[in-house]
Amino acid sequence: MPGSLESQPDEAEPQLIEENVFHLQEYRLPYSPMKLASGVDSPPWHLGGEVLHVGLMMEGDRARDFIPQPLEAGPNPGEAAVWFTEWISASETWPDLAFLFPERAVYRECMILVGCQYKGIRGFFVPYAWVDNNFNQVRGLIQGFPKKADRISLTRLHALNPKTGGKRVGAKVKGVCDSNGQRLLEGSVCFTRESEPTVVPGVKLFLLHRFQTIEDPDRAAVHELTTARVSDVRITDVWAGEGEFKLFDSPFENLSTLGPVKVTGGLHFSMGLTITGGEVVYKYV
Amino acid sequence: MPGSLESQPDEAEPQLIEENVFHLQEYRLPYSPMKLASGVDSPPWHLGGEVLHVGLMMEGDRARDFIPQPLEAGPNPGEAAVWFTEWISASETWPDLAFLFPERAVYRECMILVGCQYKGIRGFFVPYAWVDNNFNQVRGLIQGFPKKADRISLTRLHALNPKTGGKRVGAKVKGVCDSNGQRLLEGSVCFTRESEPTVVPGVKLFLLHRFQTIEDPDRAAVHELTTARVSDVRITDVWAGEGEFKLFDSPFENLSTLGPVKVTGGLHFSMGLTITGGEVVYKYV
Amino acid sequence: MPGSLESQPDEAEPQLIEENVFHLQEYRLPYSPMKLASGVDSPPWHLGGEVLHVGLMMEGDRARDFIPQPLEAGPNPGEAAVWFTEWISASETWPDLAFLFPERAVYRECMILVGCQYKGIRGFFVPYAWVDNNFNQVRGLIQGFPKKADRISLTRLHALNPKTGGKRVGAKVKGVCDSNGQRLLEGSVCFTRESEPTVVPGVKLFLLHRFQTIEDPDRAAVHELTTARVSDVRITDVWAGEGEFKLFDSPFENLSTLGPVKVTGGLHFSMGLTITGGEVVYKYV
Amino acid sequence: MPGSLESQPDEAEPQLIEENVFHLQEYRLPYSPMKLASGVDSPPWHLGGEVLHVGLMMEGDRARDFIPQPLEAGPNPGEAAVWFTEWISASETWPDLAFLFPERAVYRECMILVGCQYKGIRGFFVPYAWVDNNFNQVRGLIQGFPKKADRISLTRLHALNPKTGGKRVGAKVKGVCDSNGQRLLEGSVCFTRESEPTVVPGVKLFLLHRFQTIEDPDRAAVHELTTARVSDVRITDVWAGEGEFKLFDSPFENLSTLGPVKVTGGLHFSMGLTITGGEVVYKYV
Repeated sequence: MPGSLESQPDEAEPQLIEENVFHLQEYRLPYSPMKLASGVDSPPWHLGGEVLHVGLMMEGDRARDFIPQPLEAGPNPGEAAVWFTEWISASETWPDLAFLFPERAVYRECMILVGCQYKGIRGFFVPYAWVDNNFNQVRGLIQGFPKKADRISLTRLHALNPKTGGKRVGAKVKGVCDSNGQRLLEGSVCFTRESEPTVVPGVKLFLLHRFQTIEDPDRAAVHELTTARVSDVRITDVWAGEGEFKLFDSPFENLSTLGPVKVTGGLHFSMGLTITGGEVVYKYV
Repeated sequence: MPGSLESQPDEAEPQLIEENVFHLQEYRLPYSPMKLASGVDSPPWHLGGEVLHVGLMMEGDRARDFIPQPLEAGPNPGEAAVWFTEWISASETWPDLAFLFPERAVYRECMILVGCQYKGIRGFFVPYAWVDNNFNQVRGLIQGFPKKADRISLTRLHALNPKTGGKRVGAKVKGVCDSNGQRLLEGSVCFTRESEPTVVPGVKLFLLHRFQTIEDPDRAAVHELTTARVSDVRITDVWAGEGEFKLFDSPFENLSTLGPVKVTGGLHFSMGLTITGGEVVYKYV
Repeated sequence: MPGSLESQPDEAEPQLIEENVFHLQEYRLPYSPMKLASGVDSPPWHLGGEVLHVGLMMEGDRARDFIPQPLEAGPNPGEAAVWFTEWISASETWPDLAFLFPERAVYRECMILVGCQYKGIRGFFVPYAWVDNNFNQVRGLIQGFPKKADRISLTRLHALNPKTGGKRVGAKVKGVCDSNGQRLLEGSVCFTRESEPTVVPGVKLFLLHRFQTIEDPDRAAVHELTTARVSDVRITDVWAGEGEFKLFDSPFENLSTLGPVKVTGGLHFSMGLTITGGEVVYKYV
Repeated sequence: MPGSLESQPDEAEPQLIEENVFHLQEYRLPYSPMKLASGVDSPPWHLGGEVLHVGLMMEGDRARDFIPQPLEAGPNPGEAAVWFTEWISASETWPDLAFLFPERAVYRECMILVGCQYKGIRGFFVPYAWVDNNFNQVRGLIQGFPKKADRISLTRLHALNPKTGGKRVGAKVKGVCDSNGQRLLEGSVCFTRESEPTVVPGVKLFLLHRFQTIEDPDRAAVHELTTARVSDVRITDVWAGEGEFKLFDSPFENLSTLGPVKVTGGLHFSMGLTITGGEVVYKYV
C-alpha cells in the first residue's frame, strides 16, 4: 500500500525509493546502511533455558479485561501463569553469540500469561513482560511482547554447593522482578516430586503488537494480534511442587488490576525451542 | 491462516472492539486495561539539560548513504554532528516525575545527526541514537529515534570543586557512549570562549520510524519519516571551543560506515524545550 | 614494626622485604607491582557537588546505640541527619578524571549522620553509608565509612526545563537509596526560602574503621576511630524548606533500629571541599 | 593529638567498651548495633559453580614481581592461570540466600593466579580479582582478595538450545571481564575431550591483605599474608581443551605488567566447596 501524507503522492517515486531506501533485511536498529549494524537479527532464534512456572487462577471475570478482542477467554476461564525464565540465546546470524559475546546472549525474563483462545486454538495472551537484556527487549517489541527492561533474578541450583545442592525434592527456586529499585513481583516453587514433560501446558502465545503513531496518542501506527512460530520444542528435567506468588504495588505497572489470584501449583523445567518467526493473526487497523 | 486486514472484515466488529479493545490513550507498555500502567506517557514532554555538541564533516558523498529518500542532502553536504546530552524530563502526566521518581527522570543520550533537507526545510537525520534510560528508549522508538539502551557518561562541571571548577575558559567536557563493556564513541570540547545562543544550529530532526513485521524481516509493519514538534526552545550559557571525536569498532554498530570525519568545532550549552508530539511527513508503505 | 606470626620471626628479613614487598604509595587495589594500577589514589581528593540535607531527631536514648565509645552523645542528644549528595570528584593523581573518565568521577552517596562529640569536639558519627560508585566505596572503606555499593538517585533541577524549572521557592528535591531492587530510604525537601551558608551544620565526621580478621569474626584486624581532614570548604546557593524522610525494611540493613525519627527541616546547597587525608583518633586494639 | 595505641591505654577502659562498643560477631558493614545489619556474614560460606580455567605461562622472571615476600616462586616458575567463575553462594547465616534473595547469591568473578610457594606449600597468589556482586567484593577484601567490582560475563551452555547444545566436544566457553565500559580481559576454552578431576590444579590461595591507614598512604593499617581454609572440595564434569587469553589496556589496571603470556591449555569444570575461614600466615607490621 503506497500510503503517504495526502499532500505529497508525487514525491513517493518508487524507483528512487528502490535506490536508496535502506534495504532492511533484518529486524534492526539502528537504520544504518550496512547490514551488520543490527540491534536484533532475523529469526530463527534458538533458545535453551530454565523455566519457573507458577500456575495462577484469576478471580471471576477479571481475566477477560486482559484479553483483547477478538481473542476469547480460554476453556478454563481465569487460568493464568507467571513465568520466570533464564535463556541462552543464539540466532542463525550469530550462532556463536553466547561464546563471542556472552554478555549479550544470556538473559532473564518474566511474563504474565493469561489463558485465551482464538478460533478454537487455545493459548495464552501476554499482557505483561519484563526482560533484563536490551536487544531482547527490542526483539520482543517487534514480535508484540510488551517488554519492559527491568531486572529479573532467579535462584540457580548447583549440585555441588554443599549447602543447597541441585534439583531434588525440597529444592526451592524463586524468581524476582524489580524495576528501578522497586520490587514488582515474585514467584517461587518448592519441589515436591519429579514429573513429566506432559504436565507442562502447551505454550501458544498470542501477542498484541501495538505502537501509537507519534501524531496522536489515540491512534495506532501498528495494531495487530500476532503469534510466534515455534519449532523443536524439547522439555526435560521437570519438577512439580508448591508455588507461591506475590505482587507489589507500582504506579508504573498497576499490577493490582490482576486482582486476587490463587496459586494452583508450580513447575520447574529445562526447555529448548526455536522461534522461526511469527504471524499476524488479526489486524485492528 | 486467520488474520490479515483484507480477508476478515467481519471479525473486526467495531462495537465489540469498542467494548474491550484496550483504550490506549497513552504511548504505553504494557497493554493492561488500566491507564496508569504506562511505560511512556503522552506528550507534551518537557526537557531541560546540558548539551555537548561536536560539529563534524563527513567525507565526499558518504553522508548520502545515511539519508533515506525522500530526504535530500542538506545545503552543506557532509555536515553532521554528535550530541551528548543529559536531560531532566517531565510530562503533563507526571509533572513531578523528577521529584517523585528521580531514578526515572534523569537520563543521558548520544546521537549522530546528519545534515539533510526535506522540501526545502533544513534539518538533521538521526541514523544512530543511544540512551541510558529504558522508558526514554521506548519513547524514542515510538517517535522514530533508532535508540538503543546503552551507557552514556558526561563530564559534569561544578563551580565549587576546588580542582576542576565550573564553566570557564579551559574547562573540558567529554561524553562517552559504551555498550555492553565496549566503548562505542567519545566526543569532547575544550572551552575557548563564551558564545551566543545564535551559534547553536537549529535542530529540526527527521526520523525513520520503521519496524519490520514479524512475518517477514523484509517487510515493514510501519515505515515512515517523522519529525518532532518542538516548542519553547531556550538556550543559555553557550561556550564554544575545540572539539574532538573518536569512533570505536563494534560488530553491533558498524560505526565505521560513517567513514573518516573531520571535527569542525565544539559547543556546550544549556537547553530547554517542550516536545508537543510529532508528525509523519512521509509514508513508505 | 616487623610484626609477625609468632612462629616465624626469622623469615621476615627486612632487607628482602625492602626489595620486593610492593611499594604501595597509594590506597590501591590491586596490589600489582606498578603504581598506576590503583583502585583508589592518594589524597588530596577534591569534591564539588549538591547536597540534600534532611535534619532528624531520634527518640530518647536511641542515638546512643549508634555512637561507639569513646565518642559521646552530642550536646543536642538525638540530633541526626540524612545526606543525599551528588559529587564530582578529582584527585592530585587524576586531576582530570571527570574529563578523561566521566563514568568514574561522578557519583552519588547517602549517609546517616548521628550527632556526637569527642573530647569536646562536636561532630557526627556515620553508622550507615551507601554509594553508587565502586572506587568511591573502597576509598570510603579505607577512611572508615561503612559504605555499601547501592543505587542512589537524586532529583536534578534545571532552570530551562519548562515544567520544573530550577532552584526557587516551591522547588522539590528528593533522594532515594535502593539496594538490590528494594527501596531503603528516601529523603526530600521542598524549598520555602533562600538561606545562608551559616545554617549548614559544620560537618566534622567521626568514623569507625573496623575490619574483622579472617581468622575469627569476633576479632578485628583493624579497629579504630578516624576523622577526615577537610579543607577549602565552600558553600553556596543554600535553600531551606520542609523536609521528609522515609525508612523501608530490609533484612540486610536493619534501618528500623534507628527508631521513630522526627524531621526537623531540610536544606539544599552546593558545596566544595578538599579531603587532604585523615587521622586515627582512637585505637581499640 | 588524641588517640593512638601507645599513648592512651587509660582511655580504652575495657569495661566501658564491653558496654557499647558494638559486638561485631560478623564480618559486616554497616556497623549498626543490631547483628542483622550485616553486609557480609561469617563463614562458613558454601559455594557451587562453574569454573573456566585458562592455564598461562609468564615470561622469564616476571612472575616474581607479582609474588610478595616471603612467598617464593613456585616449583614451576612463571606458571599462572586466569579463572572465570560463576558461583551460587550460601552461608550458615543465610543458608537459603539463593532462594530468598537470588539477586544477591549468584555472582561471577575473575582472578589472576600466579604460582608460588610458602614454606614448601605450593599455591597461587592472587594479584588481581574482579567480581560483579558487592557483598562478595567486601567479603573478598576481608579475606585479602584485591577484588574490584566490575562486570564479568560467562558463556552458559544449555543442553536443550537447538543451536549451541551443552557440554560436549567442540563446545566453547568464554569469560569476559570489563570495567566501566572497557574490556579488561577475556579467556576461553574450546572443549576437545572429557577429562578427570585430577587434572585440576589444587588451589591453595595466598592473599595479601593490606589496607593503608588514612593517616599516611605509605603506611598500612593492616598488612598481612592470608590463606583461606577450604573444605569439602568436589569437582565433576571436567572438560579439557584449547585455551585463549587476551589482555586489554586500562590505566586503572595496568595489566600489561603481566607481560607476554603463553596459554598452556584450558579446563572447564563444576566445583563445590566450603570456606570455613582463613588464617594469617605472615604479618608485615
